[in-house]
Formats: sequence, C-alpha cells, structure tokens
Amino acid sequence: MFKKVLVANRGEIACRIIRACKELGIRTVAIYNEIESTARHVKMADEAYMIGVNPLDTYLNAERIVDLALEVGADAIHPGYGFLAENEHFARLCEERGITFIGPHWKVIELMGDKARSKEVVKKAGLPTVPGSDGVLKDEQEAKQIAREVGYPVLLKASAGGGGRGIRICRNEEELLRNYENAYNEALKAFGRGDLLLEKYIENPKHIEFQVLGDKYGHVIHLGERDCSIQRRNQKLVEIAPSLLLTPEKREYYGELVVKAAKEIGYYNAGTMEFIADEEGNLYFIEMNTRIQVEHPVTEMVTGIDIVKWQIRIAAGEPLRYKQEDIKFNGYAIECRINAEDPKKNFAPSIGTIERYYVPGGFGIRVEHAASRGYEVTPYYDSMIAKLIVWGPTWEVAVDRMRAALETYEITGVKTTIPLLINIMKDPDFRAGKFTTRYLEEHPHLFDYPEHRDKEDFVAFISAAITAYHGL
Amino acid sequence: MFKKVLVANRGEIACRIIRACKELGIRTVAIYNEIESTARHVKMADEAYMIGVNPLDTYLNAERIVDLALEVGADAIHPGYGFLAENEHFARLCEERGITFIGPHWKVIELMGDKARSKEVVKKAGLPTVPGSDGVLKDEQEAKQIAREVGYPVLLKASAGGGGRGIRICRNEEELLRNYENAYNEALKAFGRGDLLLEKYIENPKHIEFQVLGDKYGHVIHLGERDCSIQRRNQKLVEIAPSLLLTPEKREYYGELVVKAAKEIGYYNAGTMEFIADEEGNLYFIEMNTRIQVEHPVTEMVTGIDIVKWQIRIAAGEPLRYKQEDIKFNGYAIECRINAEDPKKNFAPSIGTIERYYVPGGFGIRVEHAASRGYEVTPYYDSMIAKLIVWGPTWEVAVDRMRAALETYEITGVKTTIPLLINIMKDPDFRAGKFTTRYLEEHPHLFDYPEHRDKEDFVAFISAAITAYHGL
Repeated sequence: MFKKVLVANRGEIACRIIRACKELGIRTVAIYNEIESTARHVKMADEAYMIGVNPLDTYLNAERIVDLALEVGADAIHPGYGFLAENEHFARLCEERGITFIGPHWKVIELMGDKARSKEVVKKAGLPTVPGSDGVLKDEQEAKQIAREVGYPVLLKASAGGGGRGIRICRNEEELLRNYENAYNEALKAFGRGDLLLEKYIENPKHIEFQVLGDKYGHVIHLGERDCSIQRRNQKLVEIAPSLLLTPEKREYYGELVVKAAKEIGYYNAGTMEFIADEEGNLYFIEMNTRIQVEHPVTEMVTGIDIVKWQIRIAAGEPLRYKQEDIKFNGYAIECRINAEDPKKNFAPSIGTIERYYVPGGFGIRVEHAASRGYEVTPYYDSMIAKLIVWGPTWEVAVDRMRAALETYEITGVKTTIPLLINIMKDPDFRAGKFTTRYLEEHPHLFDYPEHRDKEDFVAFISAAITAYHGL
Repeated sequence: MFKKVLVANRGEIACRIIRACKELGIRTVAIYNEIESTARHVKMADEAYMIGVNPLDTYLNAERIVDLALEVGADAIHPGYGFLAENEHFARLCEERGITFIGPHWKVIELMGDKARSKEVVKKAGLPTVPGSDGVLKDEQEAKQIAREVGYPVLLKASAGGGGRGIRICRNEEELLRNYENAYNEALKAFGRGDLLLEKYIENPKHIEFQVLGDKYGHVIHLGERDCSIQRRNQKLVEIAPSLLLTPEKREYYGELVVKAAKEIGYYNAGTMEFIADEEGNLYFIEMNTRIQVEHPVTEMVTGIDIVKWQIRIAAGEPLRYKQEDIKFNGYAIECRINAEDPKKNFAPSIGTIERYYVPGGFGIRVEHAASRGYEVTPYYDSMIAKLIVWGPTWEVAVDRMRAALETYEITGVKTTIPLLINIMKDPDFRAGKFTTRYLEEHPHLFDYPEHRDKEDFVAFISAAITAYHGL
C-alpha cells in the first residue's frame, strides 16, 4: 500500500480523498494557493504546500505538482474530479516520473476523451449508441432511408455545429424533407459546409450512468446505475441510485454490456459510462468519464462499497475483492448539490462569506463538504459548497428524509440551491419519478419560494426598532 | 398519525426527534427558556415557546408542558431521554389530560423504575440476574453455602450500603469467613444494622444492553445488543453494536429471553434491558431503561431501522411491521460522545463558547448534534455537545473510520473528549475488543496527549510577532 498520497485537488473531494487515506493509514499531502491557506483540505492533510498564488492555475499546474510529489516522497497522486483528472498528459507525466496516477491508464483516458472514437469502441464491444447515420449524410434519399430504419422522430444536425445550433426535430417524413434543405443551406452559410447528421430523437430523455470498478488484472464489475436527469445549465443538481427507470432485468442486461465494454477497453480503477435513456428504459451510450464522479456517494450508500478507497487500493495493485454477484442494492440514495448560487437568477454564482452554518446530521444523512462558518465563496472555483446525501429503505423515505434534512440545513451569507431543492422534494412529479433532463424547464413553479427570512435577523431587527422607539 | 408533537427536551435529542417528525410530515413544537432562545431545536421546530427563565426547571416543568401541549393542539409529547423521560407521574399526567406520551405505559415505567421489583419481575420471566443471596444473609453458614453454589469469587456487601461502601471481594472460603465478621461489624457501626448480602462477583465485566421494540398489540422484537463498557464516571463514552462478545447463538438466546420478559411486563415502545456480562458472554440483568437511549444510533446503523420514527408510529397505534427474522445485522457501528470536558481533569465540564466548528462528513459517518460555531456550553446541562457515529462493514474498518473522523472533527473554544477518543481508537486493546467497564482506569496512558495547538492560532501569533518586530 502507498505510504503517502498527494491530493491534487481542493474542496469537498480533496477532503473525501484525504479521509479515505486516513482510514487506510496513508499520509496525505495537500496543495493550495494564497487564497486557500486556511481551507479545510489544507487543515485535514498531514502536510500542505502552497504551490501558487494564482487561484486559477494552482490545481492545473501539472509539472509543479509532479515535482512536489517527488520532493516530498509521495508514492501516488489522486486527481479527484475536474482539474487534471481526465488529462492524459498529466497521467502520462506521472507514469514517466515514476509516480502512480490514481485512475485508469493514460492511453485509456486519451481514448475515452475522444468522443467519436470512444463511441466506436464501445459500439464494437456491444453497447448501443443512439441510432442514426454512420457519419455525414449523402443526400435526402439516405436521410429518408435511415429515418425509416431508426423510426421517427429524428434529429437533423449540422456536422460542424455545436451547442444546439442548427438542430431540427423531424416528426415525420414530410418534416424531414422540408428541414433537410433548410438545414443544409443554413449549415452551408454558417460553417461553409452543408454536412448533416441524422440520429434518433429520444423523447423525454433521462440521464442514466453506470458505475464501473475494475482492477489491474482484468477483473471488472459494475455497481449499478444512477439517474442524474435533474440538471441546471447542463450540470447535475440531483442524483439518485438506483434509478426508478430500470428493472432488475434491464440493470443486469446493461450492467453486463458495460462490464464487457470496460474489459475490452482495458479499463481499470473507477469510471462511469453515461447514457441517454428513453421512456422504456433503453439506454444509448454517450461518453465515459474516466475518474471519480461528484455523485459517487449515492452508489456507495446503496452498495456499501467505498469507491474512493477502492480507487486507491486498485492503483496500489490490489485485486478487487468483489464478484458481480456480491453486489447487492439496498434501498435508495439521493444526492443534492448545495451550490452557492441564485436559482432565480439562472443559477448565477453567489459570492460571499458563509455567516451561519449548521449541517444536518442523523440517520441515513451524509454530508460531503469543506465548508464551515467563515468559508468564503470565491468566483474562482465551482459554486458547489456541499453535497447532501441521504439513504432510505424506500424511495419515499429517502425523499422525505432529504426534504427534512434540507429544511434543517442552515447557510446564511450566500444564496443557495436549498429552497429550490426543497420544492423539488415536495413536487408530485419528482416523487412519482417523472423527471427528464428538461425537468427544471418544465417545472418553473419550483422556483417560486419566499426569500430566506431569518429568525435571528428578525429578532435583531425588532430589537433595533424597539431601541429606536425608546430613543424617540 | 399525529398532526403535531411537542418535544419536551433540548439539544441533540430534541433535534433528532424533530427531524423524525419532519420526515413523517408531523408538525413540531419546541420549548425553551431565556438562555436557549437561539438554540438549534428552537430553530428547527415549526413552533417554539419560551416556558421558563430558569434553565434548570424548564424541561422538568411537567404541568406547564402538558398545559402548553393542550393550548397549541399537540396530539403527543416526546420526552427524549433524561428530564421527564422516565417519570411515571408525567406519563400519567399526559394520559389523564388526553395527550399521548411517546413511550411505554406509566405503570410499566413505575414498575421498571423500582430496581428491586423490576429484577424480581424479569427473573420470573426467565432472565438471569446476578446469582446470590435472596435477600439478607442469616449467618456465616448460609454465606458459605450460597458462595459454594454460585462459585467464587463473590461479593459481600452491606444491605444498607451504597456507592461501593462496605463491599468486599472474597476469592475463597477463607476470605469469605474472615470478611464476614469484619463486614458485619462495619455495617453495624455504620448503619446500625449488620445486614449483609452476597452475590457472585463478575470479573472483567462488560456492560451489554439489548434494544427492545414493541407495539401496543403485544408484538415485541429485539434489535440486538450494544456494548457500552467504556465509561467515564459511570457514564458511557463509547458504544458499539453489535458487541464483539456475543456469538450469534448467545445473541439469539438472550434476545429471545429479553423479548419474552418484555412481553410479560406488557412493554411497548422502545426500551433497553441492561446487563452485566462476564468474559464468557453470560449476561445478568441489571435494569431496564424505559426510554430512547443516547446510544440508539449504533443499533440503527447495523439494523437499518429508524428507532425514533418507530417510537412515534407505535405511540400513534401503528403495529410493528417487522418480525424477529426480518432483523439482520450488517457490519459494525461505533458511537463516541463528544463532550465539552477535560479528560485530564477527571472529565470536569469545560464551559465556554465554540469558536471554530467543523463536522466531519462522509461515507459511513453520522453526526447527531445541536452545536455550531457560537454554541455556548453552559454549566446547566449535560456536557455532551455531539455524538459521532460511524458504520463499517467490519470492526476494523469501523474503528479506522472513527479515528479518521475524530481527527478531522474541529472544535475550538472548549476542551473536548476528542483527543482521548482518538487514543482509544488507536489502542491495541480496544482494537482487539479487550475492554471492560474498568477500561479507562486500566489504561491511564490514553490520557497522554499534547494539548491542542491550532495552526490558525499559530499563524495569528506569528503575524502579531512580525507586526511587533516591525513596530520596533
């Protein structure tokens, strides 16, 4: 086992990794910059080094981080998520300098980082992808033929497009033919090429992802799926394990395919295959994340398996001690991201200092956070300040527990996603499992909540008023 | 189900009960006094009423509490632990005034509150008690005879004594005869009567207790046992579920006896039967606590059953939905009491204000607390400010997790039991399960730890020194 691990990250995930190391009896090294000198991860680690002044490049400074790891005698580097986590150059640099990178091999990171190539590879391994044209369409005739094969509705999109530009939904052949010419001309004008792609349009889509865990000896298992459909600005907000969508049969079916694909890629350590799902629970591969995910705790809660500890063990060369049949799913877990942002203002970050802070505790309640009173939310990093995770024996108990825990979470000084999340927990559609990736757009009333009024502030206000009155 | 519950308590247990009510969709009413107007339980409840000025009698003011419950339309009162929890007069008053008392019937509280009668009752129901004389010894001959029956060593003690006065350990017949006369004369002198009792002396005793849960229809189950041997000044400090002592067979054997006894008493709601255990895992009944215990979370963690929610459901007349065979024990849970006290000064309370406060979170980590930064530890109430509970799939993982969680728990402004608890988690005897009720006395080196030195305080000190230097 490693003697010392450098954690190349900050915030809650750095704390999560440091705690896993502590439990395993491994010394930890934190890195930080001038504005983070009193950050929680710095306090928690056995050693901490200031390696930068600029908050933006501290955790991206690959060369400096590897140098430091060698200087302080670290055996391995855990990249967390974000920053250098899916950077194949960093993983390769670690290998070249003789430091273990806690994650898959850099060649696998590189392969899965190429969205087109990764789709081809997993498709060959048997995973379904969204059906459609195999590359650019030749002409209208081919578009018609493929649309008939995959079934309407279909999407027409410019090959050179992005971010939704030039995308058209076609619900029948008539619409397809009409859109084809318009889309072609538009693409020609916009990108200089009229190349179009066609794929099946998934209605009411959900985001479903499978957690994979594999060791360096070719043994791979899956830990079931998560439903991460509820997103804001394409970032996940609420995550659930297991999904309410997949039957045990579908879970087993796709789980086997996922494991087979991971084996063929030569995948080891923790990873996640992301899918778009239709209403019947058919999954289509989108991409693979070759790192720990923000939402990994929900899988830990229902399987009892500590994924971060296993990342470390696997990187150190330990064989995975679980067989697929050992993995049992117990109850339901939900994660809510507590972000310092204003949901009513399109989730704009809310910069400031946390004034009052009370973390709910209790049965089935887990918090992952680096925050405490006095914590400063800066514009430099992601606005997530904590993750609130609950477990319950049933879906209903888990939802009620999350609502109660959110109601008792106290954060003042910055605006947060908490009031929106409380409304989600109370929403009959959410409770009935009726949520897609468009859930928040389709439920604008969830944003109706009174601004936070604080009892203590109110008491202070009244006291001031009384004092003023007596002063008259 | 109840519409509104009044919580007749404060601190972490009031918060625990309010959270359970919130999860069940029940409105909550808190009570408080002048010094607790901004307390966490006051903030968390839907309604809160100041019913006193004196911090000592607020939560003991039975009449006022029942009056308030009626005034605000509460259906039931949850007493928590301590204060009115085992007061049969209060439970009776609730019944008379038409408010449901969340606990067993007052007649059962009364019966179990009488230590001599409760022992007789459970003995008749088949539970073992510490073997010895059936009342006062007639003479030396009877002492000899009973000592032979129960086996040496035995304890001789004055019937009128208490608190260890006049207790003698006799390891053989010679010691018994010598001690008999001395003890008799001493008792005669001290209490005016030479009455002596004899009972088997349990060497290296452990404190083991069984959690019982029964509904109002005669259905009773047990949720296994806890080992609460590690105590300071006769108060529990570390609690474990399940114990490392009982085999599954012994657990089943005593569990059945406990359930049988509870049924014969007519017990309903949650309760705990406390035992002294010898090294072979033989249990002897001591007393029954007719309330929720501080250490109930460890049982929840290994069984997955929310005991406080079930207290409420049972009180509302719901039948228990579990059969004994449904209860499975998964892994190990440990609870550490985080007290504001100085272990090095015989656990003297540490009065003051919490300055910095960071609660560890994460996989398998649970906190029950009412504290946050600015929380004042007063001399009026128990010094416990939080309970830290961990779960692990094995005993070793649970102990390492507890150590890591304790190491990351930050509390400044008052002294706490945390450094002592960290040393306990590292102690080979503790890790090997070798601990009795005399553990702390027998391991004085656990009290050797450096006083807390804080990085931030150090930085402030250096800064001040530099400023002073430049000022020269």
